[in-house]
Amino acid sequence: MKPLNIALLGMGRIGKIHFKNIQQHFPEVNIFAVADPIYDPSLTEKYKKIVFSRNAQEVIALPDVEAILICTPTSSHAELIEKGIRSGKHIFCEKPMDLSLERTAALQAMAAQAGIKFMLGFNRRFDPDFMQAFKSVRAGVIGDVQIVKITSRDPGLPPLDYIKNSGGLFLDMAIHDFDMARYIMAKEVAEVFAKGLNLVDRAVGEAGDIDTAVTTLIFEDGTYAVIDNSRKAAYGYDQRLEIFGNKGMIKVENNLHNRNIIYDENGIHHALPLDFFMDRYANSYLNEMKLFFEALKYDKPMPAGGADGFKAMQIAYAAKLSMQSGLPVKLSDPAVNVNQVP
Amino acid sequence: MKPLNIALLGMGRIGKIHFKNIQQHFPEVNIFAVADPIYDPSLTEKYKKIVFSRNAQEVIALPDVEAILICTPTSSHAELIEKGIRSGKHIFCEKPMDLSLERTAALQAMAAQAGIKFMLGFNRRFDPDFMQAFKSVRAGVIGDVQIVKITSRDPGLPPLDYIKNSGGLFLDMAIHDFDMARYIMAKEVAEVFAKGLNLVDRAVGEAGDIDTAVTTLIFEDGTYAVIDNSRKAAYGYDQRLEIFGNKGMIKVENNLHNRNIIYDENGIHHALPLDFFMDRYANSYLNEMKLFFEALKYDKPMPAGGADGFKAMQIAYAAKLSMQSGLPVKLSDPAVNVNQVP
Amino acid sequence: MKPLNIALLGMGRIGKIHFKNIQQHFPEVNIFAVADPIYDPSLTEKYKKIVFSRNAQEVIALPDVEAILICTPTSSHAELIEKGIRSGKHIFCEKPMDLSLERTAALQAMAAQAGIKFMLGFNRRFDPDFMQAFKSVRAGVIGDVQIVKITSRDPGLPPLDYIKNSGGLFLDMAIHDFDMARYIMAKEVAEVFAKGLNLVDRAVGEAGDIDTAVTTLIFEDGTYAVIDNSRKAAYGYDQRLEIFGNKGMIKVENNLHNRNIIYDENGIHHALPLDFFMDRYANSYLNEMKLFFEALKYDKPMPAGGADGFKAMQIAYAAKLSMQSGLPVKLSDPAVNVNQVP
Amino acid sequence: MKPLNIALLGMGRIGKIHFKNIQQHFPEVNIFAVADPIYDPSLTEKYKKIVFSRNAQEVIALPDVEAILICTPTSSHAELIEKGIRSGKHIFCEKPMDLSLERTAALQAMAAQAGIKFMLGFNRRFDPDFMQAFKSVRAGVIGDVQIVKITSRDPGLPPLDYIKNSGGLFLDMAIHDFDMARYIMAKEVAEVFAKGLNLVDRAVGEAGDIDTAVTTLIFEDGTYAVIDNSRKAAYGYDQRLEIFGNKGMIKVENNLHNRNIIYDENGIHHALPLDFFMDRYANSYLNEMKLFFEALKYDKPMPAGGADGFKAMQIAYAAKLSMQSGLPVKLSDPAVNVNQVP
Repeated sequence: MKPLNIALLGMGRIGKIHFKNIQQHFPEVNIFAVADPIYDPSLTEKYKKIVFSRNAQEVIALPDVEAILICTPTSSHAELIEKGIRSGKHIFCEKPMDLSLERTAALQAMAAQAGIKFMLGFNRRFDPDFMQAFKSVRAGVIGDVQIVKITSRDPGLPPLDYIKNSGGLFLDMAIHDFDMARYIMAKEVAEVFAKGLNLVDRAVGEAGDIDTAVTTLIFEDGTYAVIDNSRKAAYGYDQRLEIFGNKGMIKVENNLHNRNIIYDENGIHHALPLDFFMDRYANSYLNEMKLFFEALKYDKPMPAGGADGFKAMQIAYAAKLSMQSGLPVKLSDPAVNVNQVP
Repeated sequence: MKPLNIALLGMGRIGKIHFKNIQQHFPEVNIFAVADPIYDPSLTEKYKKIVFSRNAQEVIALPDVEAILICTPTSSHAELIEKGIRSGKHIFCEKPMDLSLERTAALQAMAAQAGIKFMLGFNRRFDPDFMQAFKSVRAGVIGDVQIVKITSRDPGLPPLDYIKNSGGLFLDMAIHDFDMARYIMAKEVAEVFAKGLNLVDRAVGEAGDIDTAVTTLIFEDGTYAVIDNSRKAAYGYDQRLEIFGNKGMIKVENNLHNRNIIYDENGIHHALPLDFFMDRYANSYLNEMKLFFEALKYDKPMPAGGADGFKAMQIAYAAKLSMQSGLPVKLSDPAVNVNQVP
Repeated sequence: MKPLNIALLGMGRIGKIHFKNIQQHFPEVNIFAVADPIYDPSLTEKYKKIVFSRNAQEVIALPDVEAILICTPTSSHAELIEKGIRSGKHIFCEKPMDLSLERTAALQAMAAQAGIKFMLGFNRRFDPDFMQAFKSVRAGVIGDVQIVKITSRDPGLPPLDYIKNSGGLFLDMAIHDFDMARYIMAKEVAEVFAKGLNLVDRAVGEAGDIDTAVTTLIFEDGTYAVIDNSRKAAYGYDQRLEIFGNKGMIKVENNLHNRNIIYDENGIHHALPLDFFMDRYANSYLNEMKLFFEALKYDKPMPAGGADGFKAMQIAYAAKLSMQSGLPVKLSDPAVNVNQVP
Repeated sequence: MKPLNIALLGMGRIGKIHFKNIQQHFPEVNIFAVADPIYDPSLTEKYKKIVFSRNAQEVIALPDVEAILICTPTSSHAELIEKGIRSGKHIFCEKPMDLSLERTAALQAMAAQAGIKFMLGFNRRFDPDFMQAFKSVRAGVIGDVQIVKITSRDPGLPPLDYIKNSGGLFLDMAIHDFDMARYIMAKEVAEVFAKGLNLVDRAVGEAGDIDTAVTTLIFEDGTYAVIDNSRKAAYGYDQRLEIFGNKGMIKVENNLHNRNIIYDENGIHHALPLDFFMDRYANSYLNEMKLFFEALKYDKPMPAGGADGFKAMQIAYAAKLSMQSGLPVKLSDPAVNVNQVP
């Protein structure tokens, strides 16, 4: 069978992971081209068959390339998506599509109307534990699902420069949890109430952002999700779910560094959770690629697409607005109700 | 030393627990009188030294009685408290003081101005695990306390008649959690946002109540509590805390029926949480009495008093209002800002 | 109904627990007499109806006394049991019956042939968690029971004087676990292999005892129990079971001081196990009495009797012998095969 | 830097894992040759640079090959080790070196006297959790290490043909645990007492083997290890350690399929342990290779060598003998005390 030719755009932290995962695990996928303005020259030496380029637009245009993986900085996502769509390529794009809600809507519409497949890299959906929870919920293990509580606390502050350009906590961090809430509940959000605080580091506040937040999402049927976020949990990366239904509850606990327990005169001590997102979500990155390639190969729907990207972004904007106004914000509010293609 | 003479008003479920606990554990306390319109006649036989009466007012007036324990139905609390205060008796009263916010404020003021000691039976504050969490927080184990998340789900619906007269989920059930939030955070609430649902049983909705709720409390410094309530968790009584600070987190887990774990081909199985409140909080009822009697003996402040009762009630009213209006409600809102004595 | 008249012999630590438990929980049981050479004089003041005596033999002889509770030091157990049997009284005796295997056999035979009921206070059998495990095993939850592993480590060394007169680790400490093994497996032991060490404190070795041991018990059908003992676990009192069957496993875990979990930058910390035997086994003492009184009231067999006492003692002697010889010892070995009444 | 040229002998289940791991994770290692009597022909197509052969002896002799990985059936290990040593190649060999104790001793001596490096694939030593426990013990976390308890139960019977030729439970299965005991305790075993049973399947007994065993290892200083083995635990693969020292205890728990917990009306349910050894020990196989290649590159001692292989085998023979005789067997016993090179 002919392998699938892909182009990898961006060889930063995430791009390198996808590169390595594809090399190791997907013999039927061929990395045809790689684009990065500052890629490591030793790569060209090692991978002589791969086309290396500093220009992503050029690479997208290559006729042999069937699908592109967009792993560049956020600010370039929109134009690369557009180019990809216009060139008729299938697209995997790291989240977000764009920081502007309008442009996200426009991109989503464009992708939906084009004949291409589009997947957005909401990595948490593809974590084996969360996938298992999703499966259990869908299988009716806890009956009718009523509430999801999401704990999502980072192990430490990102660089201030990142914070300044990220759109803020709701748009760059909580957005994962907004997507998770929609994924687990399989319902649409109708209203958002959010509170934000600057508790971790004053510099975050001076940069115009918050570092701590609690958000209540009300779904269309009145059921809800509660999400608490912090940029820094002293004990590491805290990523948990609690899903409540009329027949029971599913908890997804953290994945600890090891399964050793130390008993001494001071107590009983377990290891901390995995605290680097690339370790914590190592399997997600692999599953993501697996599902992307499978969807292309067997013409299946993408497990997370443009509409998911738009809706999570819309919730994030509503959360921001709610925090600013002190009031709940409906998604039908014109401020966040930008037209998109269903 | 002369024993403390008390009168026990009401010999229902809770009254009996206090009666038994005092008999068994407090040799320095003398149950001088018991009042109940329908008390068990065998008691008079067995406890010949105790004055039994059908009239609580009369019992309160007995000159020998130094303190009263009000364990009667809620509707009679207010007048018994008033009588107790006027008679100069110390008072332990099961929560709530009254279902009316105004009258609660008035009672609180009256108790504060009189020379008596007043304790309100918020039983959860006196659970050994929650007390230990309180102690750890105050000792700085998790640094500055920022967030408390409370899970409070009952094992099953109370009788519909109870629901109809209880004031509803926020006033009779969530009020415990509102008090817990204030207790753990040791701060005052400024604003409340609540959502309520009827998911467990349609009859609850027809009786004008909800059975599922999520409430966000915003404290004066912007930090918050998130509380989720359900009248019925399929897996039993779910009573947990998660307290987050800048140096760590404290979780208080459920107390299970036993410490046996069964491994079989289907999984690894633990016992369910204790599911009857009298088992789950058996130690609370004992600790409550211990602290009440100690406060009287050593002239110490009561661990939960009239102001605590009023404030929890005020939050409950604000939650109800928020649910009805769909908007956050400030405690400074005239609708819930009833004057009380500081 | 006429209450049961009992006499309590010995008002040391354990005697006081039984006294209090009976007063609080068994209204149908009347403590008719108490014997102790140095009982607290304030008791006579407080409990005027109780006959207090310095002479246990005299108290046993009182015609009104129907059952006796022997809570005196071990050295006096045998003669008090004998007196009780001769006086036709039912007997509850703290373990052991005697430190001599021959005398234990003789006492067991005497009790079996007399018309009285005899219970031995193997407190661990009556712990709610172990009772639950027993029940699950008997109910077939793990299929055919094949192996039991017992972890039994004390929180600290007893006084050296105690060690010198206790018969040593196998006779005073491991004997509980030997009984537990027989109780859980519901089979008889055929052979014992034991190793002992002096690791905790040199003084124990100088006093002629060990403080650390591992014992393998082989049952008549070849299945086995493994027991590890230590006089001192740095992390407290470690009392666990693991029962393995062809359909699964039951673990009984320790009962911790509280159910709080602290997360900080160093790890995830749980509280230590309850470390004082009177706390850890508080419910056992209560259950013991309950079952003793029920057996008398409803003429049921005692849950642990003289034969159980003898057999555990026999295993303990075999363990001691095995440790000394370095070889496994069969219970049919004449050195430990003392005649008893089946 | 010049890559290390290795030859992989045997492309069965384990050989394939090593092949894949080396391809994916060790760019500085070159698989120069592969030998297997029935290797997959598609491999020659795909890996054109690799020398494929049906003759392991020939492959070992290739001058370019610097190290060999012996992953062939046990019966061929000895002669391939000999050939490797004579050809001056470094050797990684899956355990055991040979089923004969004498030949194992001879091979160990031969390897020790030759100038080559020899590593034995005791996979459990290289599991991240067990490695972490080893590190903690060596770092003094639990003080002086006194006891190790090993639970090692397989998820199911191997094929009867395997059992017939494996040397039996002690030689093919418990040998891992004997090695683990030496590894964790870092002491030598002096005496062995073992009991074996046929409980899982009568066919095992008819094939002359046992399927259930308990073994006590006594180290030279009197401290001990207790190991319980079963060919089949109903609940899956049970691989745990409990290491007891004078300052505390380390438990290594099973690695579960996921970190989801389901609460329903029947209990609280966790997933079962990983039950296929290739999943459970996936990281071990990778770590093994890492340490083997590092030892070669930096001229470090091998983490598990011929002496470890011999000593575990010696314990296994002693266990077998003990089971047969019903008596403890000293390793100084001539029956198992075969000369080897220290």
